[in-house]
Amino acid sequence: MKSPFRNIGIVTRPNTPGIEHTAHRLIDFLQREGFGIYLDEQSVGEQALLPEDIARCRAAAKADLGKTCDLVVVLGGDGTFLSVAREVAPRAVPMIGINQGHLGFLTQISHENMTEGLKPILEGKYLPEERILLEIELVRDGEVCERSLALNDCVLSRGGAGQMIEFEVFINREFVYTQRSDGLIVSTPTGSTAYALAAGGPILQAGSRVVTLVPICPQSMTNRPIAVSDSSEIEVLVTKSGDARVHFDGQSFLDIQNLDRLIIRRYHNPLRVLHPTDYQYYRTLRQKLHWGEQLV
Amino acid sequence: MKSPFRNIGIVTRPNTPGIEHTAHRLIDFLQREGFGIYLDEQSVGEQALLPEDIARCRAAAKADLGKTCDLVVVLGGDGTFLSVAREVAPRAVPMIGINQGHLGFLTQISHENMTEGLKPILEGKYLPEERILLEIELVRDGEVCERSLALNDCVLSRGGAGQMIEFEVFINREFVYTQRSDGLIVSTPTGSTAYALAAGGPILQAGSRVVTLVPICPQSMTNRPIAVSDSSEIEVLVTKSGDARVHFDGQSFLDIQNLDRLIIRRYHNPLRVLHPTDYQYYRTLRQKLHWGEQLV
Amino acid sequence: MKSPFRNIGIVTRPNTPGIEHTAHRLIDFLQREGFGIYLDEQSVGEQALLPEDIARCRAAAKADLGKTCDLVVVLGGDGTFLSVAREVAPRAVPMIGINQGHLGFLTQISHENMTEGLKPILEGKYLPEERILLEIELVRDGEVCERSLALNDCVLSRGGAGQMIEFEVFINREFVYTQRSDGLIVSTPTGSTAYALAAGGPILQAGSRVVTLVPICPQSMTNRPIAVSDSSEIEVLVTKSGDARVHFDGQSFLDIQNLDRLIIRRYHNPLRVLHPTDYQYYRTLRQKLHWGEQLV
Amino acid sequence: MKSPFRNIGIVTRPNTPGIEHTAHRLIDFLQREGFGIYLDEQSVGEQALLPEDIARCRAAAKADLGKTCDLVVVLGGDGTFLSVAREVAPRAVPMIGINQGHLGFLTQISHENMTEGLKPILEGKYLPEERILLEIELVRDGEVCERSLALNDCVLSRGGAGQMIEFEVFINREFVYTQRSDGLIVSTPTGSTAYALAAGGPILQAGSRVVTLVPICPQSMTNRPIAVSDSSEIEVLVTKSGDARVHFDGQSFLDIQNLDRLIIRRYHNPLRVLHPTDYQYYRTLRQKLHWGEQLV
Repeated sequence: MKSPFRNIGIVTRPNTPGIEHTAHRLIDFLQREGFGIYLDEQSVGEQALLPEDIARCRAAAKADLGKTCDLVVVLGGDGTFLSVAREVAPRAVPMIGINQGHLGFLTQISHENMTEGLKPILEGKYLPEERILLEIELVRDGEVCERSLALNDCVLSRGGAGQMIEFEVFINREFVYTQRSDGLIVSTPTGSTAYALAAGGPILQAGSRVVTLVPICPQSMTNRPIAVSDSSEIEVLVTKSGDARVHFDGQSFLDIQNLDRLIIRRYHNPLRVLHPTDYQYYRTLRQKLHWGEQLV
Repeated sequence: MKSPFRNIGIVTRPNTPGIEHTAHRLIDFLQREGFGIYLDEQSVGEQALLPEDIARCRAAAKADLGKTCDLVVVLGGDGTFLSVAREVAPRAVPMIGINQGHLGFLTQISHENMTEGLKPILEGKYLPEERILLEIELVRDGEVCERSLALNDCVLSRGGAGQMIEFEVFINREFVYTQRSDGLIVSTPTGSTAYALAAGGPILQAGSRVVTLVPICPQSMTNRPIAVSDSSEIEVLVTKSGDARVHFDGQSFLDIQNLDRLIIRRYHNPLRVLHPTDYQYYRTLRQKLHWGEQLV
Repeated sequence: MKSPFRNIGIVTRPNTPGIEHTAHRLIDFLQREGFGIYLDEQSVGEQALLPEDIARCRAAAKADLGKTCDLVVVLGGDGTFLSVAREVAPRAVPMIGINQGHLGFLTQISHENMTEGLKPILEGKYLPEERILLEIELVRDGEVCERSLALNDCVLSRGGAGQMIEFEVFINREFVYTQRSDGLIVSTPTGSTAYALAAGGPILQAGSRVVTLVPICPQSMTNRPIAVSDSSEIEVLVTKSGDARVHFDGQSFLDIQNLDRLIIRRYHNPLRVLHPTDYQYYRTLRQKLHWGEQLV
Repeated sequence: MKSPFRNIGIVTRPNTPGIEHTAHRLIDFLQREGFGIYLDEQSVGEQALLPEDIARCRAAAKADLGKTCDLVVVLGGDGTFLSVAREVAPRAVPMIGINQGHLGFLTQISHENMTEGLKPILEGKYLPEERILLEIELVRDGEVCERSLALNDCVLSRGGAGQMIEFEVFINREFVYTQRSDGLIVSTPTGSTAYALAAGGPILQAGSRVVTLVPICPQSMTNRPIAVSDSSEIEVLVTKSGDARVHFDGQSFLDIQNLDRLIIRRYHNPLRVLHPTDYQYYRTLRQKLHWGEQLV
């Protein structure tokens, strides 16, 4: 196959019965077509791959797939895709998601038509799409003490003590408001159909250049979701932290202390996602959200 | 003073600078008018009362105020009122709330006009109002292992792990729905202006015979607040508990395990709250919620 | 058949291809079982019945079905059911709804299993359910100038001019708030899953003794749905009417003038709806609202 | 005064007692500072200006102020500002709004500090801000039959008949959904704090490059506000129009027929609004929406 790609990374979702067979079919196909194949070390360790496939491929840490590969294929759901995206984003390597049954927002090719779906993409016929990520710095005592990425959202929220937390929000250093609530979701367009939607946030079209600040159960009824330009610097100063944490894509977190500051910006590299040429963004939304179909 | 009351209990909010002076004025007034006075033991212990006042009154545990007194006066905010209400509810003793500055939903007499406000009430001129409480049983392995009361709400919610929880809801043993969310608020009319409102629930008129089930950030957009008759038995079966807890009035909690059941019913005794005769329920709502005033 | 019923009224939805055949099957069945049959005159006029069926039955005005019949069967959807309910409510005759394809909230027996569904009910084996109606008076210049019933809702709303209207709300003569909005929905539990739900109102369990006031696009963010006891008298004084109208079940309306007053109370007669003995209220909600099913 | 401006247009709100005196002070000031002054012909006709001021200034139609002036000052509220903005937008002349009492989103200089507020701006010390407008085409039978602008919003909505309307939405010619509702608001960031907010839409930061589609009381609970890039072409095909109309900024409208199409795009010229140098966007939001103030 003539392809713009050469080395392809594969990551499989852990604890997914049968996923090793999907991976096997994928590896067969890629090997036949002459691609170099790198398996995610963690997937190897978790026995989410067959021994014979481990034997015939190289392995690499997730963070290194971005260096050695020029395409990463994720077998799993949106959750797996998110976790890989945060790791490979610094290297700007494009990604493709293969779902294991349910259509995902990010994993739109079904494992059943995996090879038919992948073939044209590998031949260079695809729709590329750029998704922004957030880069979050946790500032404590004036020092950046943690740095993290998020493709969906950065969520500041109370823990199990059940007490509302309090914080101040600044956008581009301008004071916005003081809020008392269960927390605040800062969401990318990608994350706008996830937790932010459950908290009452708007849907942001994938390509729109905004992020939303969605309050979680705010005490004041006048606190509403706000969409700001994705070039904004968002700062959250936690004035009553209780047992608050900040979560990234709902997959990793940091404990928050009083007077901690979160500085949230668009990450300099967008994530590149490759779609089949017949991809329609709104068809996915329609299917996932059960919207009304066209009548004529 | 001729009064239908004889012994009056006093509870003060802890850690409230100056509250001992409000209590002093109250005690002076009550003593002058010939009432028996019982101080809450915890208030005594927390030094939220002057030594001379402690010396001239008797003390009793909160739960015993209901036995020894025929009226309990709470000095503090709605939070203090809630905590006392759960303790005295079994004895059906009426309560009056004196706020320490901000108008409360439950503490409507200001500490500045305390004696003017109390005098007619103590003389028997008042508007009595009944507020329902919830009685909650936690059933584990087929046994009721905990029992609790709530005047505002019973809140099942996820903890700091940040993962949604899953549960099934039954009303009068009829299956209602399976929900995946941050949690569920079961709220009385009294609680409907508290956390339930922040989560998007309706306001329930104080005397209405309903409780609401308000989902917290439900994953499905079709889950909406439901109001059910307060004679209903509500059962919540937790099928994926994560680090969930159940909170009562946001003041006490229990840890939840998988397959725990919460059985929630109206408590047999309502709480009796006494209001001044010029009390207007909607005026309080209007002031607290900043609703539009009458133009003409 | 031994039956507690004797004369049965039949109403069919107009402009519904094939409905005359459903009616024919129903009439055959009822005649065979020895019931007296009364056809709605309007259904007769609209040719929603076969000539031979018209020939073998008597006809009556909808409002008279309540007098002559002791049961009314509606063939159609919820809309037809609503329009019949308002007519027969004064006579307290029970109703059964047969849907013509889609499950309705009020028409739960499918036309395919019509006779199987009806048979036990006609034999006296049914679950009776009472649904409240609203009685609305329009007061102009101090006089009641119109009176109407509603099973779902009474909706005050702006017309095509596109300007918000303004009004004051009183409950039991106590002033509640001044509102500027597109309008106000006063909904029964029956109507709570209709327009009130679209406007953000809560679901009210069918038997709950409340009605809701749901603002339509209120200018103030602090105006929320309120549930009040169904024994309340709700008064709406329109202070800036624009081109407002008041609608009853979305099926009839009155034009509103400045300073008109709407007085809304629970109608003295509830509507009696008969359900099959395996009827489950929440199963219908689940199916109509696409709620999550029980997992175990 | 040395100024980048030379000729200044003045528009006053009709039917506003005392506004002619504000205009008089403004004209005095501008004349003293040597500016050419053009009065809006309609303001002249409505006697919202003093005869002596009419005598000493020239008059021009609103639409011509953009040609003859290099700055337009609006005396009035946000409504007046909106109506002028649509007229002058084609000429890209900057605007300043002077409110007559209440702080507006667009009219932020108070009439009391009018000259102090205007002076630095006229000297060239100001913060310019660009606000997008929408250009709407109404397509009937394949022909564009009307064209209109909107600074706040384009609202398709049902009229007084009270029946929901139905329409299909396309974004960049891709089908999005079929909706049954009271209507649809397409809002700019400027309009996001107006009607769109009342209908549950998010707040869009003034400079964000998005417009929102906010459903009005949609029948389906899964229809949520969507924010799309302001470079999108939005098409609404009305499939069941009833008595629907389309409104522009709530100030002008067109009647809609079945199968009419609305094509909505960002207008090629943004509106230029000039603010004092100490202008803070979020301070205005905070004041208008009663958000919590900074504590420290």
